Amino acid sequence: MGLMTGKEYIESLRKLKTRVYVFGEIVENFVDHPMIRPSINSVAMTYDLAHDLQYEDLMTATSNLTGKKVNRFCHLHQSTNDLIKKVKMQRLLGQKTASCFQRCVGMDAFNAIWSTTFETDKKYGTKYHENFKKYLEYVQENDLTVDGAMTDPKGDRALSPSQQKDPDMFVHIVEKREDGIVVRGAKAHQTGSINSHEHLIMPTIAMREEDKAFAVSFAVPSDAEGVFMIYGRQSCDTRKMEKNADIDLGNKNFGGQEALVVFENVFIPWDKVFLCEEYDFAGMMVERFAGYHRQSYGGCKVGVGDVLIGAAAVAAEYNGAAKASHIKDKLIEMTHLNETLYCCGIACSAEGSQTEAGNYQIDNLLANVCKQNVTRFPYEIVRLAEDIAGGLMVTMPSQADFDSPEIGEYCYKYFKGNANVSTENRMRILRFIENMCLGSSAVGYRTESMHGAGSPQAQRIMISRQSNLEHKKELAKKIAGIQE
Amino acid sequence: MGLMTGKEYIESLRKLKTRVYVFGEIVENFVDHPMIRPSINSVAMTYDLAHDLQYEDLMTATSNLTGKKVNRFCHLHQSTNDLIKKVKMQRLLGQKTASCFQRCVGMDAFNAIWSTTFETDKKYGTKYHENFKKYLEYVQENDLTVDGAMTDPKGDRALSPSQQKDPDMFVHIVEKREDGIVVRGAKAHQTGSINSHEHLIMPTIAMREEDKAFAVSFAVPSDAEGVFMIYGRQSCDTRKMEKNADIDLGNKNFGGQEALVVFENVFIPWDKVFLCEEYDFAGMMVERFAGYHRQSYGGCKVGVGDVLIGAAAVAAEYNGAAKASHIKDKLIEMTHLNETLYCCGIACSAEGSQTEAGNYQIDNLLANVCKQNVTRFPYEIVRLAEDIAGGLMVTMPSQADFDSPEIGEYCYKYFKGNANVSTENRMRILRFIENMCLGSSAVGYRTESMHGAGSPQAQRIMISRQSNLEHKKELAKKIAGIQE
Amino acid sequence: MGLMTGKEYIESLRKLKTRVYVFGEIVENFVDHPMIRPSINSVAMTYDLAHDLQYEDLMTATSNLTGKKVNRFCHLHQSTNDLIKKVKMQRLLGQKTASCFQRCVGMDAFNAIWSTTFETDKKYGTKYHENFKKYLEYVQENDLTVDGAMTDPKGDRALSPSQQKDPDMFVHIVEKREDGIVVRGAKAHQTGSINSHEHLIMPTIAMREEDKAFAVSFAVPSDAEGVFMIYGRQSCDTRKMEKNADIDLGNKNFGGQEALVVFENVFIPWDKVFLCEEYDFAGMMVERFAGYHRQSYGGCKVGVGDVLIGAAAVAAEYNGAAKASHIKDKLIEMTHLNETLYCCGIACSAEGSQTEAGNYQIDNLLANVCKQNVTRFPYEIVRLAEDIAGGLMVTMPSQADFDSPEIGEYCYKYFKGNANVSTENRMRILRFIENMCLGSSAVGYRTESMHGAGSPQAQRIMISRQSNLEHKKELAKKIAGIQE
Amino acid sequence: MGLMTGKEYIESLRKLKTRVYVFGEIVENFVDHPMIRPSINSVAMTYDLAHDLQYEDLMTATSNLTGKKVNRFCHLHQSTNDLIKKVKMQRLLGQKTASCFQRCVGMDAFNAIWSTTFETDKKYGTKYHENFKKYLEYVQENDLTVDGAMTDPKGDRALSPSQQKDPDMFVHIVEKREDGIVVRGAKAHQTGSINSHEHLIMPTIAMREEDKAFAVSFAVPSDAEGVFMIYGRQSCDTRKMEKNADIDLGNKNFGGQEALVVFENVFIPWDKVFLCEEYDFAGMMVERFAGYHRQSYGGCKVGVGDVLIGAAAVAAEYNGAAKASHIKDKLIEMTHLNETLYCCGIACSAEGSQTEAGNYQIDNLLANVCKQNVTRFPYEIVRLAEDIAGGLMVTMPSQADFDSPEIGEYCYKYFKGNANVSTENRMRILRFIENMCLGSSAVGYRTESMHGAGSPQAQRIMISRQSNLEHKKELAKKIAGIQE
Repeated sequence: MGLMTGKEYIESLRKLKTRVYVFGEIVENFVDHPMIRPSINSVAMTYDLAHDLQYEDLMTATSNLTGKKVNRFCHLHQSTNDLIKKVKMQRLLGQKTASCFQRCVGMDAFNAIWSTTFETDKKYGTKYHENFKKYLEYVQENDLTVDGAMTDPKGDRALSPSQQKDPDMFVHIVEKREDGIVVRGAKAHQTGSINSHEHLIMPTIAMREEDKAFAVSFAVPSDAEGVFMIYGRQSCDTRKMEKNADIDLGNKNFGGQEALVVFENVFIPWDKVFLCEEYDFAGMMVERFAGYHRQSYGGCKVGVGDVLIGAAAVAAEYNGAAKASHIKDKLIEMTHLNETLYCCGIACSAEGSQTEAGNYQIDNLLANVCKQNVTRFPYEIVRLAEDIAGGLMVTMPSQADFDSPEIGEYCYKYFKGNANVSTENRMRILRFIENMCLGSSAVGYRTESMHGAGSPQAQRIMISRQSNLEHKKELAKKIAGIQE
Repeated sequence: MGLMTGKEYIESLRKLKTRVYVFGEIVENFVDHPMIRPSINSVAMTYDLAHDLQYEDLMTATSNLTGKKVNRFCHLHQSTNDLIKKVKMQRLLGQKTASCFQRCVGMDAFNAIWSTTFETDKKYGTKYHENFKKYLEYVQENDLTVDGAMTDPKGDRALSPSQQKDPDMFVHIVEKREDGIVVRGAKAHQTGSINSHEHLIMPTIAMREEDKAFAVSFAVPSDAEGVFMIYGRQSCDTRKMEKNADIDLGNKNFGGQEALVVFENVFIPWDKVFLCEEYDFAGMMVERFAGYHRQSYGGCKVGVGDVLIGAAAVAAEYNGAAKASHIKDKLIEMTHLNETLYCCGIACSAEGSQTEAGNYQIDNLLANVCKQNVTRFPYEIVRLAEDIAGGLMVTMPSQADFDSPEIGEYCYKYFKGNANVSTENRMRILRFIENMCLGSSAVGYRTESMHGAGSPQAQRIMISRQSNLEHKKELAKKIAGIQE
Repeated sequence: MGLMTGKEYIESLRKLKTRVYVFGEIVENFVDHPMIRPSINSVAMTYDLAHDLQYEDLMTATSNLTGKKVNRFCHLHQSTNDLIKKVKMQRLLGQKTASCFQRCVGMDAFNAIWSTTFETDKKYGTKYHENFKKYLEYVQENDLTVDGAMTDPKGDRALSPSQQKDPDMFVHIVEKREDGIVVRGAKAHQTGSINSHEHLIMPTIAMREEDKAFAVSFAVPSDAEGVFMIYGRQSCDTRKMEKNADIDLGNKNFGGQEALVVFENVFIPWDKVFLCEEYDFAGMMVERFAGYHRQSYGGCKVGVGDVLIGAAAVAAEYNGAAKASHIKDKLIEMTHLNETLYCCGIACSAEGSQTEAGNYQIDNLLANVCKQNVTRFPYEIVRLAEDIAGGLMVTMPSQADFDSPEIGEYCYKYFKGNANVSTENRMRILRFIENMCLGSSAVGYRTESMHGAGSPQAQRIMISRQSNLEHKKELAKKIAGIQE
Repeated sequence: MGLMTGKEYIESLRKLKTRVYVFGEIVENFVDHPMIRPSINSVAMTYDLAHDLQYEDLMTATSNLTGKKVNRFCHLHQSTNDLIKKVKMQRLLGQKTASCFQRCVGMDAFNAIWSTTFETDKKYGTKYHENFKKYLEYVQENDLTVDGAMTDPKGDRALSPSQQKDPDMFVHIVEKREDGIVVRGAKAHQTGSINSHEHLIMPTIAMREEDKAFAVSFAVPSDAEGVFMIYGRQSCDTRKMEKNADIDLGNKNFGGQEALVVFENVFIPWDKVFLCEEYDFAGMMVERFAGYHRQSYGGCKVGVGDVLIGAAAVAAEYNGAAKASHIKDKLIEMTHLNETLYCCGIACSAEGSQTEAGNYQIDNLLANVCKQNVTRFPYEIVRLAEDIAGGLMVTMPSQADFDSPEIGEYCYKYFKGNANVSTENRMRILRFIENMCLGSSAVGYRTESMHGAGSPQAQRIMISRQSNLEHKKELAKKIAGIQE
């Protein structure tokens, strides 16, 4: 089977019996649910662009496993050039969807598990790497979307997994059987869970011996027995369910999604298990996945930023303010900040290095620097976009008002700006900016930029660990003529 | 008649026949409309607190017109101390509502029109000041809420009022009759329009002779013939119409509102007219109102900030992270920024001075500095609040999920944090933060901080004008020994 | 005796036998030493302006002790208005000297000791307040400059005074005699020590019983037996000793100074003692002095900032760049930041309150907020000044090159900018900016802004203590509907 | 001839008859002049490290011209990998010298002229590329240091070269002869002029036909007839001439230098001419040189930043404050900012592309983003270093005081910090930080970061030009559903 199209991907989801709850009720047809569909469309874009020749070099790669052409989202990075292309692919998708396209977590998990299982096997003589290789061939062959799932609910953050009152606060092994293991727990904040074919589970923190039941990694189909998802609500989510609200949506077609994924005693056959009690490798898997994912944000959020910068420029034009020097300067500042993020994404890729297992890992210090900037600059870009857009962005009547026979004409009359621009187009661009700054996409562009791939303090700890302060101190002492 | 209670205020609104449109349809009973009511409750708080003895000194004042006790929102500032109390009253109300309480625009308009009419009369021998005095006595006597309305739709921003293709882009005089004038146009972004008893209209920019038909100020009841309002939609507005969504609302009881107010050939009797074609006083009225209103933000947004800081501290505690040094430091930073805004609000008040008409005006340079900081710091406070709250704030299931017999228990189980805190309370504080950062209150706390009382560039122009750069250059030349 | 003139002040210093060391050697005539004299001139300005009628209201006050007119630097604040005038006086002096004028530490010490001795006496029945009252009458009568000295060398910062290996790391009582006490130790970083008539010593931190020998406050003439000073070296200090370097100095006439003041078993008669072992009042004295001094920075640094803003504007003009929109915007930003500091200075004054002893204390939270901003904004103002000035500021040849018969003409030729401006004047303004940004005045405008009146973290601790976070948490819980 | 050692380099300078003026007088032996020597030592480090095997890969390269091993400073970049190594080499040298090592301007000029001459010849059939190739072989063969000189004095910035009253404000051709050209003018702010063997002159702005006499590029020995230099004075420059001030210097051995280089009718033979009146290529040469040089700052300033971060960490330790959480956090922030600069340096290199002439050019958008960040972050790193260091950095007595028999013991006693650290070492590290923040190295680390390779606004203009805003607008319109 070759690369799926977006349409084929969407159809493939219909074949799954994924259990999804929204507003307390199970959803019969999640594929066409108006609140969910935009996030499916975003993933579909990762399929469609792989068929577009102009993007072939970014969107596809030659599998080192099979020699076949695969979607880059299923690829193991074979060089720093592959790492750079990953970032560029993510920027492209951000530009095409102005949202989180969700498929990165799988790619980042593939690469982290590939190298970690290799080193685990080397130490323990286990077969996880071989298991994972077969699994990844299956994924590549079928061009699947996979949710690389890491974050546990964690319960009381001051306690380790084994110290929790309720052990389900972390996914864990409840039974080891001859044919496989039984797991239990949940993964929270799962981006792109519902529209994935598979889930690829990883532990969420480094662990010690007493936590070994929590040191577990495995793959499971999204519709496996015992798995279900509860949809997270986003700002302005129900606008997607309004009739005639396509303008009010701002971004009608694309979006992100988050869910709680529950594992109620789910059986996993041994060939889908990639870590099982080797607690000393939990930290490696976490750190490598986090590293890749912190790199990712130097691509995807930059692409989304590109669209927001463009939208601000359009709004300025529609407002008749495009020539003001302060507006131009704000657009430069937005660009400068956005490209600084891109620099970080590119740099941690260019400085990547080969793992023992053969694939490439990013530079960990620079990837953390990248993500740390992502926790800051999108907020400033949003602030500047709100500045340029003007207050109308949040005081404008609804589309229903514009469509109203009684008052529609007043809306069209009084919200007319630049004479050459239709009122509707002005509304559209302002609603798009609202969507990015306060609406459903703000969840992805702001809060996810803050907490996705680890909260800011997590990056600071990593920066501290890798800053090699002792070396810097020696440099200073030498030049200052200090002998101790 | 004395000071109304909140309840009396709400009942008084029912007596009005205000025409309000929401989602394209006229609203029968706007007072109880779930999307509108929270903003009415916020105004009601300005009435209730005036009856609370502990706040009497802030909330009430002795009228210089009648010698009677009036709500401070209806008061003419008699000293710098009054200006300071105004700011403190606003901080208090921000703390009690965590939202825009909307009544300030009236107070700021009263004070600006009071002094401008005095100076207009002095030059032109008109009777506007006397008209306005009577009007204000009526307002004070009846403890009314008045929308001080300034911002016109403006159309093409590169054109002056008289150059617009459609003259209605600015409120203007269409007819001068013996008994009064007829006006036409609209005011946009009107905060607290629907829940005001009266509208007090001012021009929106300085004008030249050709614009004199647009140089008009007057008072009009909110339900006058020819007046109607179209409600602006806010982020997450329809959550207020959901059943069982009181937790999801974050701030169930309070909120702000914005509307477009249309004037379709509205008749204004002469005794309610305060400016009519004296174009050379339009700028003074605008600048004075803007000055007061830029001061206001150094009070109200500080109060709202207090609640958000408190909420972040509660969230940190509920998440089990309150003792982390980086969390403490972020709370200090939020406090520091918030109190810096307060310093600006206090300083421009303390440095106020008496107008020719006898009331007090703020220091204009410092008021603009105040507002300029308000366009920055709330955004950073929000960013820090999102950092402290954690991603759950935007990925949490709906209240309906928590209430669901089928999956509610999973929600309660997996979103339990600190063992001593109920999951519900954790949800509540995170939803409150969501409401402030992305939800309906973000409109007031973020975008209104940016554009309310003038967009950032407007303040920069005023700062530039009042910076007395020539004096500073002389200081430098003297010390540097420069003789030209 | 009345108010001294600057000249009388300078002559009065000649009468002292103050022991001062510079570059390892005692200075015979410190008054005329070229490295010291500019800092004396800065203090002299505090005398001269008191005779200038246009500044009389700011520079002088009526003593509550004697009813006589005194220099405000010797005054006990009798109202919030006095506190505000203090800040304005400081801004004025910053504008006139572009440097630290050093006399504030005395004023701040007078006010802190006045109220602390009152409360100490109340608890312990001591006579410190009476002692201090007499002392202050003497100071006022003779219009003295007094160094309010607080900062001890501190040795190992992890240890309390009594735990130090060398007890001299904190000034302390070595002997209690019938006629007085004998003290020993040193005060570091003393601004304006050498040009003060007197030193007024305070403890540097809150203390416990075991530290009671260090809980000591007293006054001593600067030339008392056992007292001597070692001059601190500043950036570019020796330029002041170069011949023909008046342009290179940037600010030829004014400057600051810092010194280590050593107390080698100095005798203090009882009537000059204001605290002696009552360790539980050490913290109060420190906190009050620090509070006043953190307010001070909202005045003096603002005045210095005014001159730097002016200098940047002059440089822009001389460079021919004054009309560029980015230059104008940077000047606005500098002004905005500078006035924000002023707002903080004014606000903590306007919100001041009366002490038990009758004088007025600033609002401590806002004063700390003030100083915290001072640790940030002058650095950004400097950065913007360097941006506007251009690199020539640091690559320009020396005045000796300009004066050289051989190459002077090349210097004049090639450093000509705007045709209407002499090359010399361009040099002068750039050298002034260099002086403020990197030269000797950078010590006062930058590093002193950082560490004077306490380092940034000290303010953060105070902000935290006074933020009333519990109240804020209650506000949030109430609005979020949380019941615990 | 092979690679010179540092010592050989220094000896080679002695053979030159370079005319240098300091303080208005010609310097006999500039190599040993105490104010100049540190800057020579910094360049010497570029020679010495090339002989250190551990740095061979960074410091040397194989010439594409001769196939021989050359110092990378003389190399034409043959790949993006070469561009990355350039940045790493610069970081290394920053770490070893904590100063500007000056030799980059030559390297950046070589690469810019190489590709520009190729394209000029292609259009005009000139022989500049061949000329330049021979010249560069000579440079490589002799391992020379070359000052790539661009910045003209510029006179009135509102006027083009041909409009200046004095044509010498820009270097220009005064005579075209059979054997060569005669040039006149000056280059200002020349970093590393005096310690270069050669000068390689480029025009400073894009030009039009009327300016063609100013469109000139050529090479000239530093001691050619008619060339002389006037040394720029730096903050604290004369400390280098004090006896016994080695501690006070902070960085005794290394430093930067700037000079005005005057060309008084200098003859240039044709084979050293690389542009002569082809005004339409002036802009290309400028932009390419500037692009390389903006990349450079993502290496050198990062290396200097490393040393300053290390110094701050040492100071924290010596002050006994290394374990405070706020200190640790500030060191993380400094590291984060510094590595963000590095990311920009790496990214614009990794994204480089081949020129028509075969060497590699950086990505121009990202290089400008790099430099723009360099105009901000070093200032914040300096601010944080001053915060950590403490005020003693600027109030400490001179080394002469410490050495004084009379008062030395007091200095040693009272400036003792952490008991395990000698007072001398504490002094040394604080003086080093002073040197970086306010002293002679602040010229390189701060002001040069601001204005070197173009002032901030120059980068903003380039960012604007290359931001492809139209493409971004299209992205936004598509997603927002806008059809025009």
